[in-house]
Amino acid sequence: MSYRIEKDTMGEVQVPADKYWGAQTERSRNNFKIGPAGSMPQEIVEGFAYLKKAAAYANHDLGVLPVEKRDAIAQVCDEILAGKLNDQFPLVIWQTGSGTQSNMNVNEVVANRAQVLAGKNIGEGEPVLKANDDVNKSQSSNDTFPTGMHIAAYKAVAEITIPGVEQLRDTLAKKAEDFKHVVKIGRTHLMDATPLTLGQEISGYVAQLNYGLRAVRNTLAHLSEVALGGTAVGTGLNTPDGYDVLVAKYIAEFTGLPFVTAENKFEALAAHDAIVETHGALKQLAVSINKIANDIRMLASGPRSGIGEIHIPENEPGSSIMPGKVNPTQCEAITMVAAQVMGNDVAITIGGTQGHYELNVFKPLMAANFLQSAILLGNACVSFDEHCAQGIEPNYPRIKELVDNSLMLVTALNTKIGYYKAAEIAQTAHKNGTTLKDEAVRLGYVTAEDFDAWVKPEEMVGSLK
Amino acid sequence: MSYRIEKDTMGEVQVPADKYWGAQTERSRNNFKIGPAGSMPQEIVEGFAYLKKAAAYANHDLGVLPVEKRDAIAQVCDEILAGKLNDQFPLVIWQTGSGTQSNMNVNEVVANRAQVLAGKNIGEGEPVLKANDDVNKSQSSNDTFPTGMHIAAYKAVAEITIPGVEQLRDTLAKKAEDFKHVVKIGRTHLMDATPLTLGQEISGYVAQLNYGLRAVRNTLAHLSEVALGGTAVGTGLNTPDGYDVLVAKYIAEFTGLPFVTAENKFEALAAHDAIVETHGALKQLAVSINKIANDIRMLASGPRSGIGEIHIPENEPGSSIMPGKVNPTQCEAITMVAAQVMGNDVAITIGGTQGHYELNVFKPLMAANFLQSAILLGNACVSFDEHCAQGIEPNYPRIKELVDNSLMLVTALNTKIGYYKAAEIAQTAHKNGTTLKDEAVRLGYVTAEDFDAWVKPEEMVGSLK
Amino acid sequence: MSYRIEKDTMGEVQVPADKYWGAQTERSRNNFKIGPAGSMPQEIVEGFAYLKKAAAYANHDLGVLPVEKRDAIAQVCDEILAGKLNDQFPLVIWQTGSGTQSNMNVNEVVANRAQVLAGKNIGEGEPVLKANDDVNKSQSSNDTFPTGMHIAAYKAVAEITIPGVEQLRDTLAKKAEDFKHVVKIGRTHLMDATPLTLGQEISGYVAQLNYGLRAVRNTLAHLSEVALGGTAVGTGLNTPDGYDVLVAKYIAEFTGLPFVTAENKFEALAAHDAIVETHGALKQLAVSINKIANDIRMLASGPRSGIGEIHIPENEPGSSIMPGKVNPTQCEAITMVAAQVMGNDVAITIGGTQGHYELNVFKPLMAANFLQSAILLGNACVSFDEHCAQGIEPNYPRIKELVDNSLMLVTALNTKIGYYKAAEIAQTAHKNGTTLKDEAVRLGYVTAEDFDAWVKPEEMVGSLK
Amino acid sequence: MSYRIEKDTMGEVQVPADKYWGAQTERSRNNFKIGPAGSMPQEIVEGFAYLKKAAAYANHDLGVLPVEKRDAIAQVCDEILAGKLNDQFPLVIWQTGSGTQSNMNVNEVVANRAQVLAGKNIGEGEPVLKANDDVNKSQSSNDTFPTGMHIAAYKAVAEITIPGVEQLRDTLAKKAEDFKHVVKIGRTHLMDATPLTLGQEISGYVAQLNYGLRAVRNTLAHLSEVALGGTAVGTGLNTPDGYDVLVAKYIAEFTGLPFVTAENKFEALAAHDAIVETHGALKQLAVSINKIANDIRMLASGPRSGIGEIHIPENEPGSSIMPGKVNPTQCEAITMVAAQVMGNDVAITIGGTQGHYELNVFKPLMAANFLQSAILLGNACVSFDEHCAQGIEPNYPRIKELVDNSLMLVTALNTKIGYYKAAEIAQTAHKNGTTLKDEAVRLGYVTAEDFDAWVKPEEMVGSLK
Repeated sequence: MSYRIEKDTMGEVQVPADKYWGAQTERSRNNFKIGPAGSMPQEIVEGFAYLKKAAAYANHDLGVLPVEKRDAIAQVCDEILAGKLNDQFPLVIWQTGSGTQSNMNVNEVVANRAQVLAGKNIGEGEPVLKANDDVNKSQSSNDTFPTGMHIAAYKAVAEITIPGVEQLRDTLAKKAEDFKHVVKIGRTHLMDATPLTLGQEISGYVAQLNYGLRAVRNTLAHLSEVALGGTAVGTGLNTPDGYDVLVAKYIAEFTGLPFVTAENKFEALAAHDAIVETHGALKQLAVSINKIANDIRMLASGPRSGIGEIHIPENEPGSSIMPGKVNPTQCEAITMVAAQVMGNDVAITIGGTQGHYELNVFKPLMAANFLQSAILLGNACVSFDEHCAQGIEPNYPRIKELVDNSLMLVTALNTKIGYYKAAEIAQTAHKNGTTLKDEAVRLGYVTAEDFDAWVKPEEMVGSLK
Repeated sequence: MSYRIEKDTMGEVQVPADKYWGAQTERSRNNFKIGPAGSMPQEIVEGFAYLKKAAAYANHDLGVLPVEKRDAIAQVCDEILAGKLNDQFPLVIWQTGSGTQSNMNVNEVVANRAQVLAGKNIGEGEPVLKANDDVNKSQSSNDTFPTGMHIAAYKAVAEITIPGVEQLRDTLAKKAEDFKHVVKIGRTHLMDATPLTLGQEISGYVAQLNYGLRAVRNTLAHLSEVALGGTAVGTGLNTPDGYDVLVAKYIAEFTGLPFVTAENKFEALAAHDAIVETHGALKQLAVSINKIANDIRMLASGPRSGIGEIHIPENEPGSSIMPGKVNPTQCEAITMVAAQVMGNDVAITIGGTQGHYELNVFKPLMAANFLQSAILLGNACVSFDEHCAQGIEPNYPRIKELVDNSLMLVTALNTKIGYYKAAEIAQTAHKNGTTLKDEAVRLGYVTAEDFDAWVKPEEMVGSLK
Repeated sequence: MSYRIEKDTMGEVQVPADKYWGAQTERSRNNFKIGPAGSMPQEIVEGFAYLKKAAAYANHDLGVLPVEKRDAIAQVCDEILAGKLNDQFPLVIWQTGSGTQSNMNVNEVVANRAQVLAGKNIGEGEPVLKANDDVNKSQSSNDTFPTGMHIAAYKAVAEITIPGVEQLRDTLAKKAEDFKHVVKIGRTHLMDATPLTLGQEISGYVAQLNYGLRAVRNTLAHLSEVALGGTAVGTGLNTPDGYDVLVAKYIAEFTGLPFVTAENKFEALAAHDAIVETHGALKQLAVSINKIANDIRMLASGPRSGIGEIHIPENEPGSSIMPGKVNPTQCEAITMVAAQVMGNDVAITIGGTQGHYELNVFKPLMAANFLQSAILLGNACVSFDEHCAQGIEPNYPRIKELVDNSLMLVTALNTKIGYYKAAEIAQTAHKNGTTLKDEAVRLGYVTAEDFDAWVKPEEMVGSLK
Repeated sequence: MSYRIEKDTMGEVQVPADKYWGAQTERSRNNFKIGPAGSMPQEIVEGFAYLKKAAAYANHDLGVLPVEKRDAIAQVCDEILAGKLNDQFPLVIWQTGSGTQSNMNVNEVVANRAQVLAGKNIGEGEPVLKANDDVNKSQSSNDTFPTGMHIAAYKAVAEITIPGVEQLRDTLAKKAEDFKHVVKIGRTHLMDATPLTLGQEISGYVAQLNYGLRAVRNTLAHLSEVALGGTAVGTGLNTPDGYDVLVAKYIAEFTGLPFVTAENKFEALAAHDAIVETHGALKQLAVSINKIANDIRMLASGPRSGIGEIHIPENEPGSSIMPGKVNPTQCEAITMVAAQVMGNDVAITIGGTQGHYELNVFKPLMAANFLQSAILLGNACVSFDEHCAQGIEPNYPRIKELVDNSLMLVTALNTKIGYYKAAEIAQTAHKNGTTLKDEAVRLGYVTAEDFDAWVKPEEMVGSLK
């Protein structure tokens, strides 16, 4: 492999000749061999591309960057966003906690790539762009990394998580409507209870997802605030007047998302409560999804020794040893995702607590965990929707068999004969393996006619809107 | 000890003669000897008192409960709320996961106490109230427990957590204003950075708490929904028409808080995502508080070998062996509370995932953890405010000494001489133990006059609104 | 209420006249009104009683404490251990993170109670014992609190957790033996799988508990190390030679447990990894118990619309609205305990990470969470054993019905006709609602005789040791 | 792209022509588009390679697999282990929770690659190996995935985690020895305390790591048990006699690690408590490492406004805006790793709780989180060691300055003049900004000569072994 020499304030470093990155990126590569290379999420790099371009525009508008430099920066940022430079970002999550090295990675790549685009060799003559003085102008890692993190997080939530959850929610809402008259046994404590309809049961899932979506949306105002303009400690040192508002406006324009400048830059650097807050809502979604997917696999269990009230699609052979076996694999994938999100929430929580003074230095950890959760949740909802939820169908004979045999229909008699006598009927039928009606009549508490008039599963499920 | 005999649908049970509870409470006492007796939070019992009274009023209005029974129920509920029956609720958190036994505990106490208030012996003649048929009318544990849980949770948040956090926030806001011109060294990565004012630093804490308060408030709409009216599985079986809306109205009236009936009763029984959601926001507050309290104890560390930039009150002797030692004990108490809230969040998350079919049976766990968090956070903020935050004062000489010596003031030269020369100045001064000015002039990059004109800490802190 | 005046190095404080505690306890009461009074676990107070007595004996043996003082200290410690002074310890968990105030609470109570036992009034004349100089001799909060914490933790694990888990394990082992020939359907992914015996299924639970017990025992060596002798920062300042080993010997003698002096006192004060370690093993037990209890409630579900393969005891009425309902309430209680332990593990983990320099100041938090977990786990296992596990009985007809109908018996044919043909048989029987034998013969893959010879559930369960 | 047709029991599937995988892998690729492709850890694939080869050997020895098939299987497994087939495993973590599809991925790749190695086209004629009947012989996903998981986990711990931690431990042990006479101020509650030596302080870190290593090793016996031989539900259906012991022997031989057959196969499939157990110990190491790295960055803080008692290496420029800034970046990387491990512990805990009946279906989640933790911890310790710990040096002048000024040296007077007078001296010196000696003499409690004789920091640090 051939190398060239790059320099920073600490001296010279050998860098692979075919890469655009510079001394600081190379130092980080060498100093942080922790886990697989390149683990810093690509979404963060893209967040940087948006903000570097926005900063260049704002700097130019405010008179501190010539138009040629602005355009040179913007051109490389656009290349990054187009995915043309994906192999130029080799750093890991487990670097400096401010993400300074990833900021410098972007600064260096932008500067050196611009040099090449200008037809010059890297290091040749007066540089087209200086990494620190031009590309990083009016910036610090301390405000760029949180800005890139918010851009990436907001985009992932808005473009992957929310649409994914909504897609699943819409399917379940349709199922709730389709099956709103399918009367089935209810279960509480896993034990037989009074009836409800399958549509009602599923409507609870829809409600859970709607509350979860609302919870996520409630957090987005905080997440839309970007730290850019705070620079090193939040004071905005070395930025021109009006820069913070203007750069946020450009970020909003380039991303198409409603970013604004953070109200308090000290908070925006030293704490990442916005990440904690939105991820808390993602965790709530994980909780909801866990409940829903668990129910569905239990309701679909069988085919002969389980609950078996619904059918779900058979997508693949389920066993390498048991022929003909089919399993609720989408439920398994999505509940594993839910568990991951809950674990990530703890990592983010711990990271969030550990800001010290003017800076939280758990930024890459928080960003990486957040993005994993947001993307997995959104993807898993789509997968679950397409390969499971859309195919849910009632197993009508099984549903009818179970509701007809239920002892908990006796609850309808409470208001007629009182809880105690009703209990006696149910207990006797359970002991004798008989029906409620048999025992109700035999015990002399109800006539056969009254029993038939009073105990009607389809009238025990309330009004079906 | 003397006993009386109580009965339920399973048979007879001996109950202490001087207690109002009945057979089901006694069974639970005997069957669940797990941890200290009476651990079910008193706030939950009070929540039940509100809802039993509200149910009695709604039942009467809708024609299913005579006025004498309504008033008998209400009278005992008022006694519970007045704290007169505190020794009547001996059950533990670790009982049935629906809280059925605590619901029955209230039903039994209300029925038997009403009997006594009516001048009769317990068990004598036709009972004034029947526990299941009257006190529990139009109810199920499955909708009462979540309702009691939401009442208790909402009250704790509204009456303890939010006011406590606001009290602390207000003190910090005053400090931010008071110290807005106190220029001090900033620190990032725990290392010296460019200056800011003490007021700016504290303003970040205020912002954190404001975001946290907003996050909590965003969740209250969900928490204000009560399950009552869903009865056993969410269908509202055995409730009169209009009952759910009416009973919520009465709860709102009696508590003075904006409770409404849950939009989807199936969700309200089978999932407790509202508890997950609000506790997620409490956890965010814990994260913020941890950061703030950590900063304060580090800033106050010393007296001679620490940072020492601020003074905090000396409240008690700090050591049983080291004479004269004083410690940041309020910071310690509140960060322990923060850690507890983060742990509770995981317990609640796990509980929240494990609803099955029509019922989540981790209700008492979720309620107990939630209430502990809400109360501890509110109490700890008040304690921290009164015994620490209010007494924060700058250590002016120390602050001045540190800012004057800082090498990071060199950052002001970036825009004058570029990042690389500025770095050389700082590194040389660090190596030689000299001042920036000495080295700036010696290296020939800046004149002494320019240095004095350009490097002014008080001009590096941005505009002070 | 009447008061007396107590003094400490900060001045005078009013203390309730009928209490033995002194100025520092009272300051803490006033300064830390966080959550319910007296929340510091009683087990910690008892741990202090053991160690104060041990310190007095060691101090005497080493010539720094007269025999009368030793005996005066020991007498009050014995009273504490006998439960006679339970109302003398009003402090909360949420105090200074070193637990200094609880150490002083004990010091003050011992000193003042000894004064009274000597027939003098508190504060009268030369004190019988001085709280700091005598009761706390050769000690610091920094080594006493961790010592008290280890004593309490070890005792709880040894006397409550382990016996409780063993009791449950023994019952399950008996059930595994009793039911070792009961062939039943297996389930993987919640779906029907090849058969096993009920005894085999339960033997897995036994194995889980045995591994968990071994994991707990593996941690006890670390937990048996006590910090006493390290004093303020671990150096043992102000202790006589040989004190640390001797005082540990006395603690071992008084408690009957194998305590030894910590190998490295700096670690023993600054970190509480022993608490983290043992609680990690408790969390493992919680994971195991969650699995076991979940299985049992699913296997017992019904009575008519669930799995219903086993019967568990009916301990109490299960519903306030559904007559005759019985629920797996012990499973619910113990899985709530499991969730609590998992939450506590996170609180302890966070507390454990936050030692700074020579002291971890999350001690009371860690102690309280640990003790709650250890006690709840032990109690819950006993409760679950007595009220659930001992009563587990197979539902033979149901078990037979399900195993006879199973399609997964086809797996026995893999080695005869290959996986693909076997799959075709199972899929066809599933589609047609027929039996494996019907389809096997119809498809021409197996003769009826061979089918009967090859597909025998009782031969598919392996060797039954 | 060109395709070929593959078949499984559900029908035909198009597979990329240049890949060895078959129908089931392709179905999984299409059905689980969740997160980045290929996320199933490579270490798991390697674990499968070991076990497939071992199974082939055991099957052959026991007479159920011809030698040619054994060798064909072994040859492809060796290719996998040599990294030659890395692009053949495209599946994600978020698939079926049994990992069946990854098991089949390996089965299919082995079968098709063997076909090609035999000089035949895939699908041509009688296959050299059948994926289910030969490669998967005497196996089920349900026993292979846990086996592969244990192989991968044990290897990662033994080959990466433990050596990494030991390397760091050895460096710190050397530092503890090197600096054992460097007397410095102690700090408790972040506040000045009595002195100790830097070597003593660091010896606490060494002790923490040693306890952590012991804790990890304590868990390895459980982790060394492999499930293979249990097949579908633990009964060992379709395996030859003696297979389980023999196949474990081969795994041990091929990996060079002490694997044995699991004592109870039902536990080994239905629960993954061994993963929970070992990861609990990894989490303990994370807790310890967090404490150590936090201390080091605080001790190294400055250069002029922090604690500054030690120097750590300056590895890279610390700021993109503040010239000359150097940060404790290795501390940041490793504490982020610690936070990740703590989050992963919760994900694993949740996964561990959710086994149902005969199978835990959170296997890939548990495996992936475990491996990430084990590898990150090991790598981060090496990185931290090489780029930080090895370069720790005392800042002698600063250490001396701080210890000389300390007020807590007064503690040495406790045993001479009592705690109260000593406190008065310290408090007065603190108030007046004077020295202890000044005030001790002025207050008349100690003569200057006695003070000098009694208050010697170097004699307050105990015996230095």
